[in-house]
Amino acid sequence: MRRIVECVPNFSEGRRPEVIGQIAAAIEGVGGVKILDRSPDPDHNRTVITFVGAPEPVGDAAFAAIARAAELIDMDQQRGEHPRMGAADVVPFVPIAGVTMDDCVALARQVGARVGEELGIPVYLYEAAATRPERVNLGEIRPKSHQYEQKKTDVGRDEKWTPDFGPAKVGKAGLTAIGARAPLVAYNVYLTSENVAIAEKIAKAMRHSSGGLRYVKARGFLVEGRAQVSMNLTDFTQTPIFRVVEMIRREAARYGVGIESSELIGMIPQRALIDTAVWYLQLDNFEPRLVIENRLAEE
Amino acid sequence: MRRIVECVPNFSEGRRPEVIGQIAAAIEGVGGVKILDRSPDPDHNRTVITFVGAPEPVGDAAFAAIARAAELIDMDQQRGEHPRMGAADVVPFVPIAGVTMDDCVALARQVGARVGEELGIPVYLYEAAATRPERVNLGEIRPKSHQYEQKKTDVGRDEKWTPDFGPAKVGKAGLTAIGARAPLVAYNVYLTSENVAIAEKIAKAMRHSSGGLRYVKARGFLVEGRAQVSMNLTDFTQTPIFRVVEMIRREAARYGVGIESSELIGMIPQRALIDTAVWYLQLDNFEPRLVIENRLAEE
Repeated sequence: MRRIVECVPNFSEGRRPEVIGQIAAAIEGVGGVKILDRSPDPDHNRTVITFVGAPEPVGDAAFAAIARAAELIDMDQQRGEHPRMGAADVVPFVPIAGVTMDDCVALARQVGARVGEELGIPVYLYEAAATRPERVNLGEIRPKSHQYEQKKTDVGRDEKWTPDFGPAKVGKAGLTAIGARAPLVAYNVYLTSENVAIAEKIAKAMRHSSGGLRYVKARGFLVEGRAQVSMNLTDFTQTPIFRVVEMIRREAARYGVGIESSELIGMIPQRALIDTAVWYLQLDNFEPRLVIENRLAEE
Repeated sequence: MRRIVECVPNFSEGRRPEVIGQIAAAIEGVGGVKILDRSPDPDHNRTVITFVGAPEPVGDAAFAAIARAAELIDMDQQRGEHPRMGAADVVPFVPIAGVTMDDCVALARQVGARVGEELGIPVYLYEAAATRPERVNLGEIRPKSHQYEQKKTDVGRDEKWTPDFGPAKVGKAGLTAIGARAPLVAYNVYLTSENVAIAEKIAKAMRHSSGGLRYVKARGFLVEGRAQVSMNLTDFTQTPIFRVVEMIRREAARYGVGIESSELIGMIPQRALIDTAVWYLQLDNFEPRLVIENRLAEE
């Protein structure tokens, strides 16, 4: 099977197209990677770029983008709505196909070491790549109350903020969080009801924070006259999408309604859909090599 | 999306490995195709080779294999259990991804024309590529009562047997049927029952020939103490696998049993599984570009 890692770096620039263009060019300058999406947000003054490829070129492209962002973005000048601490603010590696989470952790640490040593930028490892429990959540590394300006003062003084790689000293490129996480699937379910209270009750039943499934974040909304359960599935390999939709179906039935339709926001790894088909068809002995396309991608 | 055609030629040689090896080498000698399977059958003295690639190289590889088989297999010497009429006996092109059935019909006709003109082998077009209704079914083109020996006499005398391409004269390489058909999915369902009569009743309800679904062939068996509904789905794009399994589930419930598990025999196109996931998840606005792997395969 083809080995695919996704990288979804966030840069602290969403207003100057020429800067975003140069960062994207640095990524594309590395052969063997492909940019799937580029989303600049002028209000938050922030851009998210999504690119994919085999692990080695994805690591090289991430490094090249972090280096270019450090040259072009001066954090002493940067202003915007979103909490931020560096020119390349957050750089997650995501296993898509033929690679494990451990592979992505190793990649995050390799790229982190290079960024620290060669660019002199302090690096925190986060999520699956974290070296300390309090650095798993990005929100604890970069709280609203401790952004670039506060870190400039405290890194080097307070051991709490000592980086995993690079100098304990913050320059104009700020700091970068580099990590590994599972692919995020944004999945919304529309009910055969106009009653948003039902969507809210189902969302409460589904989400981890109020007793539901471990890797589900959920809220209820009214969208174009339809009650909608809006979800982020933060690890479909552990809380699969078929279990989520069947649980919603059962909860909805309790209120006398059904599922009208559903939608994906953004992209999904093939595996999430194949796993779904295998579960409903009860294909106990399924293996990915049975899919013709996967066989073609083998070397 | 990557364009993939499958070709599943049947050759009238299943005993001499060196001949099969040379035919396979002719296929692999064309860059851009990949052999997925090679199944020689000494009893039937016949070999099925499965290979895939983009339409153009698959057409070239099929032509090369037919040419090599014509050099190496003398139909005047060939004996075996299976009905046959040529060295390269049957050559179907199958749309897997990013190509339509019409593309495969065009490919079958191009290759057929080359085989007729350049190799001097008479060619019948069959299934979706057929030019006459009585040539749709291979069984009517090559009945047990009208194989190589009978065709040698009748082609050129009887307009019924005039080929679509090539001379109305049969040489030692015989004749070749070239066509286009949908991918075949071999799918077996095991019931929570040891009663083969239930599997037989469900098979009867499912299969086209006794009033069931259009593209389903089904029989009931007892396999390792379990009642099994064994099926060939001859066009999953028109009779989808999710509809088949849900209909079996409902029929089984009528006898108080359920589905224990199911299995694929051989390979399946990705699309058959993705279609299944989309149906169960009710993803009304799904498009193949939402799958990350498909985006990567785009040029």
